Amino acid sequence: MIPVKGYAAEAVKVPLAPFNFERREVGPHDVLIDIQFCGVCHSDLHQIRDEWGGSIFPMVPGHEIVGRISKVGDHVKNFKVGDLAGVGCMVDSCRTCPSCQEGLEQYCETTGMVGTYNSREIESGAPTYGGYSNQIVVDEKYTLKVSDKLDLARVAPLLCAGITTYSPLRQWKVGPGHRVAVMGLGGLGHMAVKLAAAMGAEVTVLSTSPNKEADAKELGAHKFVVTKDEEQLKSVTNYFDFIINTVSAQLDLAAYVNLLRRDGTMILLGVPSEAPHIHAFNLISNRRRIAGSLIGGIAETQEMLDFCAEHNIVSDIELINIADINEAYERMLKGDVKYRFVIDIATL
Amino acid sequence: MIPVKGYAAEAVKVPLAPFNFERREVGPHDVLIDIQFCGVCHSDLHQIRDEWGGSIFPMVPGHEIVGRISKVGDHVKNFKVGDLAGVGCMVDSCRTCPSCQEGLEQYCETTGMVGTYNSREIESGAPTYGGYSNQIVVDEKYTLKVSDKLDLARVAPLLCAGITTYSPLRQWKVGPGHRVAVMGLGGLGHMAVKLAAAMGAEVTVLSTSPNKEADAKELGAHKFVVTKDEEQLKSVTNYFDFIINTVSAQLDLAAYVNLLRRDGTMILLGVPSEAPHIHAFNLISNRRRIAGSLIGGIAETQEMLDFCAEHNIVSDIELINIADINEAYERMLKGDVKYRFVIDIATL
Repeated sequence: MIPVKGYAAEAVKVPLAPFNFERREVGPHDVLIDIQFCGVCHSDLHQIRDEWGGSIFPMVPGHEIVGRISKVGDHVKNFKVGDLAGVGCMVDSCRTCPSCQEGLEQYCETTGMVGTYNSREIESGAPTYGGYSNQIVVDEKYTLKVSDKLDLARVAPLLCAGITTYSPLRQWKVGPGHRVAVMGLGGLGHMAVKLAAAMGAEVTVLSTSPNKEADAKELGAHKFVVTKDEEQLKSVTNYFDFIINTVSAQLDLAAYVNLLRRDGTMILLGVPSEAPHIHAFNLISNRRRIAGSLIGGIAETQEMLDFCAEHNIVSDIELINIADINEAYERMLKGDVKYRFVIDIATL
Repeated sequence: MIPVKGYAAEAVKVPLAPFNFERREVGPHDVLIDIQFCGVCHSDLHQIRDEWGGSIFPMVPGHEIVGRISKVGDHVKNFKVGDLAGVGCMVDSCRTCPSCQEGLEQYCETTGMVGTYNSREIESGAPTYGGYSNQIVVDEKYTLKVSDKLDLARVAPLLCAGITTYSPLRQWKVGPGHRVAVMGLGGLGHMAVKLAAAMGAEVTVLSTSPNKEADAKELGAHKFVVTKDEEQLKSVTNYFDFIINTVSAQLDLAAYVNLLRRDGTMILLGVPSEAPHIHAFNLISNRRRIAGSLIGGIAETQEMLDFCAEHNIVSDIELINIADINEAYERMLKGDVKYRFVIDIATL
């Protein structure tokens, strides 16, 4: 076993604290990654608070992992020692069901995907521990190649926030001529703006706060609509082909759904703790749709990383010391971050 | 003006009673139809009760109209006296907006579609009166050709219940290899079963009542699932490509959404008076979708009528005298009809 140090929540709603644990030995298909940076995702907080149920403690969160490979197993083909590498939300899946075969491992139909943390390895049943730690052992099939052209700390959030927004934009073939709205200018939302703009769409940020306009435009948004301003809202009624909804707070969706043109689609990425209402009439009256999307498959995550390297897209981040993680959570809860906290694992 | 007799609700929630009124003269592009049968749609009841707001009284309901043409305007090209004809939910629209140009007049973006009743003519602003009457004047562009191969009384419901279910099945390209579930075995649901089966899909009726199984199979369903039976429900989890939801009662949709496989779509056709909840997690976790659909365009309605003639598809009906309309509404409210009441206008 490989001794590793990290930060863990020992139990539900307990602050994170230093935690020593062990990783499995590097198997023939595994790589060992010396982690350099790990992004802080809102789902880390949901899970240490057990808000989705079934949390496994102690929990080492973190699924936006980048670092450098320090060891490879005998049968590893695509990575060598010294390569940059990334790990996202999953580290395994059954590999044989139709979804896995189609490269949509996140929807694995038999075992379900094995989460990078707060999950269990398929065979051993051992809990998985995430990227708030100095090393991780991952099968190369679930390991991503990372370009050395980009600022590595700012690449980390692409592994979750990036792919979560990239995947639906690709699935729905967003491109030139499309009008895309983004609800929620946080970790996911700011990536949605950058990616949709890079794909050639007209991008509008929908926000309750007029003071976010300059930031939205800076990120690449073409338009900004203050949703509390009825005139502004009216000007984009029946307007958008897509609304990327990253908001996990409880909202009246009807007002937003009405901004979709005929055959427009609202894509839900955030999970509100209380389910919002479907206003069937608003969907029926313009043949609109509401769709969900969950991260992305491994091949698509690689495609996203390559797309970002090509278009020079990274996350806007605030780099923190790992000792400040609990404070960062408090600020994240208040939306007080532009736009993603990333832990400098060198401070561990 | 043309004197017409019909049945009308004089005010909200007042029983329907005989009503004499006038239609416009037959214009150069109009046809005059001697109505023979008119279907009774649940939306007739919603509107005479003003449950959707903005109802116009007196109201002559009815938008599932079939009859024979008795007069044509000078410039009418596609109909002649003696032809069978049908009129569905709309009698006009702007004709120039993108939706109208694409043959999706039901989503007309400028004037909105002009409903066959409880609506207003675009230029004159005169209220429109529906098919619970002995004659109607309609622009030939909004008039459908009806085959003489089918039982005319049983064709009437195709003009709303038929097209409302046909259109989404076509939009989503339902065919062989697809598994389609139908929720609600009423006027819309029984047509969805017949049409989806004729398109080659495997059709399952989802019902709370075990005693509907024989009827469902008779209509063409291949499978029948009692949704109150947990074992049966479990057997179709992640199973369907499409769920056609015709239920306008308040339901917990989560249990149904979970029956969709990855990338499956629930199509909402009914409008519950209280909006059901979206369980975002159920959509996200299998990339599922909820979509609306509203009747169909004129060209598609003609295509549906031709499809039904080719496949010998009609509605299962109970023919009533117009004097029994108020009693029929009471029975409809209780779901006590297989599956559509149709008024024999000869009894007017």
